[in-house]
Amino acid sequence: MATKTDFQQWAAAQQQRIEAQLQAVLPSADVAPQRLHEAMRYAATGGGKRVRPLLAFAAGEITGADVSRVAIAGAAVELIHAYSLVHDDLPCMDDDVLRRGKPTCHVEFDQATALLVGDALHSLAFQLVSEYRLTDEAVVQLEMIKLLALAAGSRGMAGGQAIDLAAVGANLSLPELEFMHIHKTGALIRAATLMGARCGSPLDERALGKLDHFAKCIGLAFQVVDDVLDIEATTATLGKTAGKDARQNKPTYVSLLGIAESRKLAAELREDALAALEVFGERARRLRELADFIVLRKF
Amino acid sequence: MATKTDFQQWAAAQQQRIEAQLQAVLPSADVAPQRLHEAMRYAATGGGKRVRPLLAFAAGEITGADVSRVAIAGAAVELIHAYSLVHDDLPCMDDDVLRRGKPTCHVEFDQATALLVGDALHSLAFQLVSEYRLTDEAVVQLEMIKLLALAAGSRGMAGGQAIDLAAVGANLSLPELEFMHIHKTGALIRAATLMGARCGSPLDERALGKLDHFAKCIGLAFQVVDDVLDIEATTATLGKTAGKDARQNKPTYVSLLGIAESRKLAAELREDALAALEVFGERARRLRELADFIVLRKF
Repeated sequence: MATKTDFQQWAAAQQQRIEAQLQAVLPSADVAPQRLHEAMRYAATGGGKRVRPLLAFAAGEITGADVSRVAIAGAAVELIHAYSLVHDDLPCMDDDVLRRGKPTCHVEFDQATALLVGDALHSLAFQLVSEYRLTDEAVVQLEMIKLLALAAGSRGMAGGQAIDLAAVGANLSLPELEFMHIHKTGALIRAATLMGARCGSPLDERALGKLDHFAKCIGLAFQVVDDVLDIEATTATLGKTAGKDARQNKPTYVSLLGIAESRKLAAELREDALAALEVFGERARRLRELADFIVLRKF
Repeated sequence: MATKTDFQQWAAAQQQRIEAQLQAVLPSADVAPQRLHEAMRYAATGGGKRVRPLLAFAAGEITGADVSRVAIAGAAVELIHAYSLVHDDLPCMDDDVLRRGKPTCHVEFDQATALLVGDALHSLAFQLVSEYRLTDEAVVQLEMIKLLALAAGSRGMAGGQAIDLAAVGANLSLPELEFMHIHKTGALIRAATLMGARCGSPLDERALGKLDHFAKCIGLAFQVVDDVLDIEATTATLGKTAGKDARQNKPTYVSLLGIAESRKLAAELREDALAALEVFGERARRLRELADFIVLRKF
């Protein structure tokens, strides 16, 4: 195995940090209701690329944020992401049986438990961002909670999921596909990035706008690459069912543009994302590396 | 029709206020994703006793809280309650078709939409309590958000639902039944009461403890009366399926104690609740009237 790059070492350390943070804040499986708590831990720990927390940590480096504060913000975002995966995998939604290389929550436990796991992880995310101090100013923390709530709700992630459901079998245009992804995955990626930054010294509106533009581009690039990998990669590499989008007749970047044009789009989005980081100079190094990781990843 | 009592007029006015508040904060059904927003409005408006917001308004009278602030806190609690009903009614949970005299959300729309409706109402609740000012001190508002998150989560309402699921067909003892209800409905009733009070002037720890004890007793009394009504009332009166608990072989106060003893328990809980309000004098008048309403109601 090749020696890890500096970025890979940093990413691995942050992934360990977020895993430890999740382990620390999830209720013990010894506490009643035990089965629910066991299932929450099953769904939220032990896997995933943790892209959203990585973005939060990298953005926190721009503002000199305390990593222990960013870890709470990152864990909250990851809990929202984990809840959405549990609900999305349910039979009435995507009906999937494999996630992060393991049986999905409703397969390992049962549907009712999986429904409650999602609900309880959702509440736990908001418990974290209100219980722990994320930033010196409580008023700023309220703004961060609002950002997370908006990103998760009907004009963010949950809304994107609804648009996605309605799109099965439909002929979406490229702007319509983009609209869906900006909601479904983009909103939470943007929230993770902005929350990470806001744990530290205040940024002015223009800088926040640049950071948000970076996150918007990288969120879309993430999805474009996901669509390419869904075609090119194997289930074993992905840890989730490959080729699912095509079988479910879901519109994707690949179905609209083909593989070559999709790769080109991802590269353009990366360029756009990197350009937005110029104002931050060397402090945005980890964000740049993450942009590369997201676009060039194989899984 | 008999002339309304002063309490009935007050309650009707607060119910109208909370309905208007929910109408104002729920996204318009004209905004994308339209079907999701239409279904959120279907699930959260136009019905229900609004017991939790009423408790918030009544508790706010103790501390001289601004009613427009209490309306936000009450609407947030009601959104959490509404989301829980939508999810509880799903086929993988209680599988019910009637709620507030209308088809349940998944019957009127579809299961996937109902799942997302619950999720989006859940997020919207936390958006409200972070977006609007609930109290002068932002730090106190963070504590209120934490209170709501804990009441909704795995050691509150969602946990109570998990305990309820595990109890179907089981022989619970009275303490076990109480443990379930303290989580399933009690946690949110306590949060509503305490949040309403915290919108106003600060209460000391002892006063907050008294108020919490009132809410705990009245939450249990609410459930005992619910169990009695499930046997005695008709589906038409309740607006939800009557006699369901017995058919589903769920343990209830009536199945454990019988109707007469259950009524006696409800009366005792009311006495206990009223005793806890003594420290507040005349300012707790609406809370006393609500305790009577909850125990003496016929629907």
